[in-house]
Amino acid sequence: MKKIFIIITISIIVSLVGCNTKQSETAMEQKTEPIFPKGEKVTNNNFSGTVYLHMMGAGDTALHTSFGNVTFEPKARTNWHSHPGGQILFITEGQGYYQAKGHPAQPLRKGDVVEIPRNVVHWHGAAPDSEFAHLAVSLNTDDGGAVWSGSVTDEEYNQAKKFEK
Amino acid sequence: MKKIFIIITISIIVSLVGCNTKQSETAMEQKTEPIFPKGEKVTNNNFSGTVYLHMMGAGDTALHTSFGNVTFEPKARTNWHSHPGGQILFITEGQGYYQAKGHPAQPLRKGDVVEIPRNVVHWHGAAPDSEFAHLAVSLNTDDGGAVWSGSVTDEEYNQAKKFEK
Repeated sequence: MKKIFIIITISIIVSLVGCNTKQSETAMEQKTEPIFPKGEKVTNNNFSGTVYLHMMGAGDTALHTSFGNVTFEPKARTNWHSHPGGQILFITEGQGYYQAKGHPAQPLRKGDVVEIPRNVVHWHGAAPDSEFAHLAVSLNTDDGGAVWSGSVTDEEYNQAKKFEK
Repeated sequence: MKKIFIIITISIIVSLVGCNTKQSETAMEQKTEPIFPKGEKVTNNNFSGTVYLHMMGAGDTALHTSFGNVTFEPKARTNWHSHPGGQILFITEGQGYYQAKGHPAQPLRKGDVVEIPRNVVHWHGAAPDSEFAHLAVSLNTDDGGAVWSGSVTDEEYNQAKKFEK
């Protein structure tokens, strides 16, 4: 009788270990699947680290907008820059930061939205340990495209980390 | 010996049935978890069915935009309407349709984007068997807000279903 009890216990443990492994794999796949296309690796000098850009839309110039999906690998970020017509960021994956010049950095995560006023110098990018993706909608582009400035130094980036949620 | 084999088999089956139930529940939760807040139920007459709206942004009027997250229950849809300044839809959940007046309906699913030109009369809404959510970014709002028209009849909606992906 004791022998049978041991056999039952072992069988159940073996089955459940197998099923829990499958569950965590499922969760991992669903967590990391992006909603919008990642696009191509950015090769210009307006970013630090590895960044991917997928521009969207048919380019209807009468709408005065340009928009796309931007994906940052951990620690990757934009240079300091501003938008004459303003921009909206919709965070769709991971964790990162937005910082307007002269203000504390603002931690961001999936589901957050940032309304960037016209001509405010700022940067955005990924947290040190997380990929980060956002839709970026540039507005009133007839007032001009992004105005790029210098890169965000490691010292500036490390300051931002102090404001983690 | 045969008895022991039967006991092992029953134990494994019982364990796996339990674990598969847990797995499908997990998958369901992750599949239906929205990225952006669902907001409040819409009570005006510009929609058919049950629709939720969460407006976003600090309302910086200098940006000439308004934006929010719209969630449609199955079969729910907007009335026919147009935007003097145009609008962008970013589909974040489920499946639905976009139809411009006089054109076939376009099936939409998570990850799709629609660039709606200025003054084009159209509707958007959920598929019959799926919830549907999109970010809606209205552009150039200094040219005027949405112009609403009549509801999308069941006949018009059923025509749209013929263009399922």
